[in-house]
Amino acid sequence: MSEEHDPCTPITCGVNNDDDSSVVLDYHDIDEQVLQNMVYDALVWASLNGLVVGHKSLQRSGSVPGVGLVHAPFSLLPTAFPENHWRQACDLAPIFNELVDRVSLDGKFLQESLSRTRKADEFTSRLLDIHSKMLEINKKEDIRLGLHRSDYMLDEQTKSLLQVELNTVSSAFAGLSCVVSELHRSILSHYGKFIGLDSEKVPANSAVNQYAEALAKAWTEYNLPGAVILFVVQAEEQNMYDQHFLSVVLRERHGITTIRKTLAEADQQGELLPDGTLLVDGQRIAVIYFRAGYTPADYPSESEWKARLLMEQSSAIKCPSISYHLVGTKKIQQELAKPNVLERFLENKDDIAKLRKCFAGLWSLDEPDIVRKAIESPELFVMKPQREGGGNNIYGDAVRETLQKLQKEGSQGDAAYILMQKIFPNISAAIMMRNGSLHKENAVSELGIFGAYLRNNDKVVLNNQSGYLLRTKVSSSDEGGVAAGFAVLDSVYLT
Amino acid sequence: MSEEHDPCTPITCGVNNDDDSSVVLDYHDIDEQVLQNMVYDALVWASLNGLVVGHKSLQRSGSVPGVGLVHAPFSLLPTAFPENHWRQACDLAPIFNELVDRVSLDGKFLQESLSRTRKADEFTSRLLDIHSKMLEINKKEDIRLGLHRSDYMLDEQTKSLLQVELNTVSSAFAGLSCVVSELHRSILSHYGKFIGLDSEKVPANSAVNQYAEALAKAWTEYNLPGAVILFVVQAEEQNMYDQHFLSVVLRERHGITTIRKTLAEADQQGELLPDGTLLVDGQRIAVIYFRAGYTPADYPSESEWKARLLMEQSSAIKCPSISYHLVGTKKIQQELAKPNVLERFLENKDDIAKLRKCFAGLWSLDEPDIVRKAIESPELFVMKPQREGGGNNIYGDAVRETLQKLQKEGSQGDAAYILMQKIFPNISAAIMMRNGSLHKENAVSELGIFGAYLRNNDKVVLNNQSGYLLRTKVSSSDEGGVAAGFAVLDSVYLT
Repeated sequence: MSEEHDPCTPITCGVNNDDDSSVVLDYHDIDEQVLQNMVYDALVWASLNGLVVGHKSLQRSGSVPGVGLVHAPFSLLPTAFPENHWRQACDLAPIFNELVDRVSLDGKFLQESLSRTRKADEFTSRLLDIHSKMLEINKKEDIRLGLHRSDYMLDEQTKSLLQVELNTVSSAFAGLSCVVSELHRSILSHYGKFIGLDSEKVPANSAVNQYAEALAKAWTEYNLPGAVILFVVQAEEQNMYDQHFLSVVLRERHGITTIRKTLAEADQQGELLPDGTLLVDGQRIAVIYFRAGYTPADYPSESEWKARLLMEQSSAIKCPSISYHLVGTKKIQQELAKPNVLERFLENKDDIAKLRKCFAGLWSLDEPDIVRKAIESPELFVMKPQREGGGNNIYGDAVRETLQKLQKEGSQGDAAYILMQKIFPNISAAIMMRNGSLHKENAVSELGIFGAYLRNNDKVVLNNQSGYLLRTKVSSSDEGGVAAGFAVLDSVYLT
Repeated sequence: MSEEHDPCTPITCGVNNDDDSSVVLDYHDIDEQVLQNMVYDALVWASLNGLVVGHKSLQRSGSVPGVGLVHAPFSLLPTAFPENHWRQACDLAPIFNELVDRVSLDGKFLQESLSRTRKADEFTSRLLDIHSKMLEINKKEDIRLGLHRSDYMLDEQTKSLLQVELNTVSSAFAGLSCVVSELHRSILSHYGKFIGLDSEKVPANSAVNQYAEALAKAWTEYNLPGAVILFVVQAEEQNMYDQHFLSVVLRERHGITTIRKTLAEADQQGELLPDGTLLVDGQRIAVIYFRAGYTPADYPSESEWKARLLMEQSSAIKCPSISYHLVGTKKIQQELAKPNVLERFLENKDDIAKLRKCFAGLWSLDEPDIVRKAIESPELFVMKPQREGGGNNIYGDAVRETLQKLQKEGSQGDAAYILMQKIFPNISAAIMMRNGSLHKENAVSELGIFGAYLRNNDKVVLNNQSGYLLRTKVSSSDEGGVAAGFAVLDSVYLT
């Protein structure tokens, strides 16, 4: 999005394709009565089918299930996405899965690539410490489970699918994304005829079943009867129902028990048996699934770091291992985008070409030409800190100011950031539901493709694309179209 | 329950049978860790599967779907119920369905039976006015739809199933009762082995599908393409999700649209076409399904009464018609229990015997012997006002006081009440979930059997038992075991 767009005017329609030849509908033009009926039915459907989160302002909503519930923010209707780019993104999933695994095995590459970041970013430094310790004791992870989500945007100018980031830890929304796809199919089954949309064009989404299957297969590979899967969680988690969908499928379909512990609880209740088995609260752990531990806020004391180290030292399957976690850092993303780096990890030239095609421009701040260009034209760049969790990116004039400040300081601080080519996504007229109210907004969408990878020594047990997530965010000229306002869960309408 | 019972001591176990020979478990004795795990999983399951209500203290929770949600109060585990009494209750459903229909056709019986009540109870009087008008114009309801729920308790002393009341209007919980049964089956599938319970002993509950089917078949009999089903609702309805389950099945399985209007809205937006077709907000109505209109509070002005009359005058199928509504009054229940009254409406002697077997003692206050007995031994009686909606019954010493007051006044006020034999139900050790918290209580249960009846002139389209509801209430010695504290949704564990 360029900044001359007036965010109050719908610019392109909700369902559109690249050449504007099959414009179906501007969602903001839907008949008011049809719209109100759809809104009501969608809110009802969401409530009856678990499309819920804890409401932040309500007590216990992040700790006790069943209280303080509100529907998760969602897009009333699915957002148009070209089928060719959709398929391109799906096809990339197994290649990224394989890449993550290969890179994770090159401990030296990870340590060296992150050596400057280590000095500038305390959090990355602590992760690297654990990684170093594992290298020192020559710790091997024979069974490796990756549940990744690669996020993309469609660049409107180049008509290309560009990767925003690759999540290798706590890839969220496998649960709720499936429910949103079903919601859209249900709403279109009934209202599609009034607005010219076909429910069949919303791809079926089996993310939750596939992620649960991957966790179950990892549990099976670990082969310890009676062992459980540990979900490492935050003490307060309003998004717990997304996680609970996985637990319920694990219990009901696979007969596997999950337990939930914070890092602090894992420290207090965890112990390592001599054979490497991890016990937490007396229960043997087959798989550790991290839904916490990806942000510095999850480590308020040394206790949490102790727990992380203990778990890494155990023989339990870690999703992710410390190596997988590090592969997902922004810095590694940027290193992999450098010429001839992919070739160090992958052999297949087609695969390499496919990956490279989706890489946006990525640079470190020790490249003076790029930094100069970014100061001149900050609107063409996004500055990304190592820090995970979203909302920390720097856009527009703030890019210039931050770069100039870092230049004056002359410290290692620049290593905490990377620069990324600004993507200018298509803007669509969205109808966003939040807290029971409808918001007609201009929005941009980000496609997340879930991937699951499971390997036991030489045997690749699983390597697939596992469903998808669309997130649609209010477009703001201030931030150049990326996530100024709130975001909603969405699904894809293939065009 | 007799008052010498200490409500703090479990008296009988949760799963029990009449002769105590197959005691499985006192629910209050379950291992604390197993209990906590079950509680957590049950709260999660409830949230993901729409076992929700609006939370009374939260704004908009009764008007906007999707906001201010909390799990519906539920029993963590199903409550023991003897299979023979369960079957007896199920078998009664079609007989009661038929009885309601027969009685509804005898306008003179209804008017005469309620003539004294009319003078004492303004609400019944208004309903009778509408009924009179329909008699005057000789209004015929060729297609008659009944969605009833007959409620029973098991009397511990006589080991007999006794009817508490018959609901012919707004029989609630067809939606949520199914979800609770599924919850119990899911919990027992996983935890049953730890506590010696078998998920298969929770009878499958298809109330929502059967009620939706009955409404859909009524819609089909009405045979007006494009017509909708009108849900008449209260403006604020925290129990809306129970109703929404029906709407969703009607839409998704039967392709039928429902609209929701309050009585006031029906007055403002309703009109009658010359052929008797009811239009509301421009939409033709095939079936009117009342989930409001059963309590004086639903008629705050003349507007609501106008709407009720307009709807009754229309050709739309009314669920219930004014006649069906009146058949469900306490006074008619008491009249039907008099000797030789059932015989006026039914021919089959077996059916009559089955009905009579479940009638508790029922008396009007113009029987001096009974009133004297109730003043002497008020603990053996419940005094029930015509007023619907629960919570208005009079127990214990208040029975004596109210009877003595009415005697002093010497007015017609006594016609607003009936006296009913007090039922002494079994007390069980229940685990009740409310607002995310566990309550270990001694409780009594009431079994509601849903029935659906659809007739088109001489053709009985549908006459069946349609699922069930168990409601379990905190037992209190103050009120002799009936509904002192809160109630939860429950399901049956057959013993």
